[in-house]
Amino acid sequence: MIKIFKLKSIISIKDFERKDIDYILDEASKLEDIAKSKECCDELKGKILGLMFFEPSTRTRLSFETSMKRLGGNCIGIESTRSCSVSKGESIADTAKMFEGYSDALVIRHELEGVSKFISDIVDVPVINAGDGAGQHPTQTLLDLYTIKKEIGQIDNLKIALVGDLKFGRTVHSLSNALGLYDNVELYFVAPKELKMPQEVLHDLNKKNIPYTEVDSIEEIIDKVDVLYVTRIQKERFGDLDEYLKIKGAYIVNKKMLEGKDVIVMHPLPRIDEIATDLDNTKHNKYFNQAFNAVPVRMAILKTLIKNNPKWNHME
Amino acid sequence: MIKIFKLKSIISIKDFERKDIDYILDEASKLEDIAKSKECCDELKGKILGLMFFEPSTRTRLSFETSMKRLGGNCIGIESTRSCSVSKGESIADTAKMFEGYSDALVIRHELEGVSKFISDIVDVPVINAGDGAGQHPTQTLLDLYTIKKEIGQIDNLKIALVGDLKFGRTVHSLSNALGLYDNVELYFVAPKELKMPQEVLHDLNKKNIPYTEVDSIEEIIDKVDVLYVTRIQKERFGDLDEYLKIKGAYIVNKKMLEGKDVIVMHPLPRIDEIATDLDNTKHNKYFNQAFNAVPVRMAILKTLIKNNPKWNHME
Amino acid sequence: MIKIFKLKSIISIKDFERKDIDYILDEASKLEDIAKSKECCDELKGKILGLMFFEPSTRTRLSFETSMKRLGGNCIGIESTRSCSVSKGESIADTAKMFEGYSDALVIRHELEGVSKFISDIVDVPVINAGDGAGQHPTQTLLDLYTIKKEIGQIDNLKIALVGDLKFGRTVHSLSNALGLYDNVELYFVAPKELKMPQEVLHDLNKKNIPYTEVDSIEEIIDKVDVLYVTRIQKERFGDLDEYLKIKGAYIVNKKMLEGKDVIVMHPLPRIDEIATDLDNTKHNKYFNQAFNAVPVRMAILKTLIKNNPKWNHME
Repeated sequence: MIKIFKLKSIISIKDFERKDIDYILDEASKLEDIAKSKECCDELKGKILGLMFFEPSTRTRLSFETSMKRLGGNCIGIESTRSCSVSKGESIADTAKMFEGYSDALVIRHELEGVSKFISDIVDVPVINAGDGAGQHPTQTLLDLYTIKKEIGQIDNLKIALVGDLKFGRTVHSLSNALGLYDNVELYFVAPKELKMPQEVLHDLNKKNIPYTEVDSIEEIIDKVDVLYVTRIQKERFGDLDEYLKIKGAYIVNKKMLEGKDVIVMHPLPRIDEIATDLDNTKHNKYFNQAFNAVPVRMAILKTLIKNNPKWNHME
Repeated sequence: MIKIFKLKSIISIKDFERKDIDYILDEASKLEDIAKSKECCDELKGKILGLMFFEPSTRTRLSFETSMKRLGGNCIGIESTRSCSVSKGESIADTAKMFEGYSDALVIRHELEGVSKFISDIVDVPVINAGDGAGQHPTQTLLDLYTIKKEIGQIDNLKIALVGDLKFGRTVHSLSNALGLYDNVELYFVAPKELKMPQEVLHDLNKKNIPYTEVDSIEEIIDKVDVLYVTRIQKERFGDLDEYLKIKGAYIVNKKMLEGKDVIVMHPLPRIDEIATDLDNTKHNKYFNQAFNAVPVRMAILKTLIKNNPKWNHME
Repeated sequence: MIKIFKLKSIISIKDFERKDIDYILDEASKLEDIAKSKECCDELKGKILGLMFFEPSTRTRLSFETSMKRLGGNCIGIESTRSCSVSKGESIADTAKMFEGYSDALVIRHELEGVSKFISDIVDVPVINAGDGAGQHPTQTLLDLYTIKKEIGQIDNLKIALVGDLKFGRTVHSLSNALGLYDNVELYFVAPKELKMPQEVLHDLNKKNIPYTEVDSIEEIIDKVDVLYVTRIQKERFGDLDEYLKIKGAYIVNKKMLEGKDVIVMHPLPRIDEIATDLDNTKHNKYFNQAFNAVPVRMAILKTLIKNNPKWNHME
């Protein structure tokens, strides 16, 4: 078996070259019928995915579980620190070694940046970062890219606006990093001044010559873009509630705003009110499809990592 | 495939005609050997059941899980509101759309009446109401009917007493509705005056000409009935603890009371002390069988709904 | 099928003869490749393991889950009393009868000694004690013995030191009981005076003529032993914190202490600091292997009990 995809673990989208991303998106596309339960699959029969969720996350956890089970495998796991030996004083390293003995791959969610990388260095099985603090959430980025490609047919040559909390939102950081790998992409960052895209991300884009524009309302860019990627603004981020209430409206998308336009709307979910529900039944709504796309994309990741792992190849 | 059973979802026992109930009971009967693990089954291989338990319920949740797994399928889910995005402010509609993307059918438990109906209207997959507030719990009713039929051989022509909290107990409401579909059934309602059967239920029975009698102790009817369906009286229902203690004894069933009689005792469980444990080793005890019967009946429901769903038929 | 292994349930290691232990260890050895996911297995396809964890335990629960799933079966369960009907006042007996209806074998964890035995007496399916209070944890003992045999090649003729909290630690009690079945074993008990091995255990060893020596520091015995079985000393056991801090150091194992010696170090895990992490990358470290060994040993137990159960043989 030729290993086209070389990563043993998925820690950061920055570890990906464009061909690695394309490989996963192609695999995901081939797995759609299984993801939709139109076909049955035994690919990962007998394999176990270890879910190490030190911090709860329903959407990410459930989509990894469905992905593993659609491929014929099964899962074990913890849903929070409370429910594991870490609460008795065990080190994360020891907890990870235990999980390694019981699993063929690990999914890690932790509130601290770097935990997934740390674990991937001490275990032999593949590790998938499912969100570490303000750091990375690379599989979310892969499913975001998959959604754009599936809905528009390409990622090159697009104008994409990222909206909302660009300072703390890890999905928009990873997505910006990844879009920098594509040709002729133009980015628009729509955020209040308190929540602007961090300098490191802008610096990376400058290095790659990716053009970007920072604005502070959706109106300013709505006529120019192909994709509107919306994220939530948490009022806790504002010291002053009045300030929050004043700016909030500029970051809410609704049906009227998009009338006659050819733009797709995405959101990593859960949403609160930053996308009006009157958009749900329009052609702009791609956020529910995006949620479903977690399944084929995570299936592609699980299949690729587990089958590439030398432990598994032993079987053949 | 001819769709004899027409319901897409199971929301209320009131949506059932007698032939729909009979269809599920027949299917359940055919699945008994698989439910008892005497035979193996791949019928729902690759399929995922989404368990949306906004309110905890061990017995219902575990029996749905076993039913799905005995059929070769698998499950994902949440066990309480606490463990899902609803706690972050996500709407139930959005949570349901997420689950729809990851599952082939949904089981809903919620403290508010109407939530299952609401969700069944916005998703394409089958929805099963597993208890919504004081509303319906239709799969419990189906397994109650299955137990009566399996133990006595028929449901027509029986005299059935419902005992305990008839005011708030949703199982006794649904069961009364369903028994109204059978021929020559006589009902006895045994409850303290504070917890009598609601007028709406009596009204329905009047319309269908089902004879019923309201009494306030088990003694009054114990010589007449074929089935004693016991439910728990919660002392919280009484403003006055003395009142509760005074009447409590009249609603406890024990071995002595049933000596020489040919009556079966049922209970949706869990019981506290309303059935004395000295009944456990008598022929009257059908409540443990009834608990097991949840498996073949829920298997029949899952198999029927998932295989009838157009999404699935696509596969063939 | 000849039933070489006669136990219906696994409640206490004291119920085992040496040939019963040897049978399980042999079976475990044959299942290693499946445990390591190098081979796939359908042995327990369609079977359900009921996990009744009235008290949380990540390591034990996850290893039972992986074991069942590697054998092609599946699991249902509760993770604490909080999440089950017992919190509504249901008796443990009723909860067990419910689980019996949904499962092919039960694993019980409870804070009270004797609960597993009680349940095994009222259900027809096999019951496995996964730790009951200060009582037994027999499957831990079996995996401890398996680890010794796999690493050293034999159990007979060894010198084994048990270190730490010998008074309250159920793993060291069960292990002492079991080692008494082997030939020419010498035991060393290393504990502070507050946490010495209970008289009952010593009494049993005397009856079987197993030589043992009680000491109060690792240094005294480190040159003599083949196995160092370390357990945690909880500071809560000491009324006086000064006393705890004074003695603590004598029960910590590190790399320097073992230099040039041919001793393996084991630990039931989780560890806090009683084994220094500088031992992790030495040949002495067998505690991570021991953690993995939970899988083949529990697979052997599940396979043997479920296939021996008359309920299952019915299938053939």
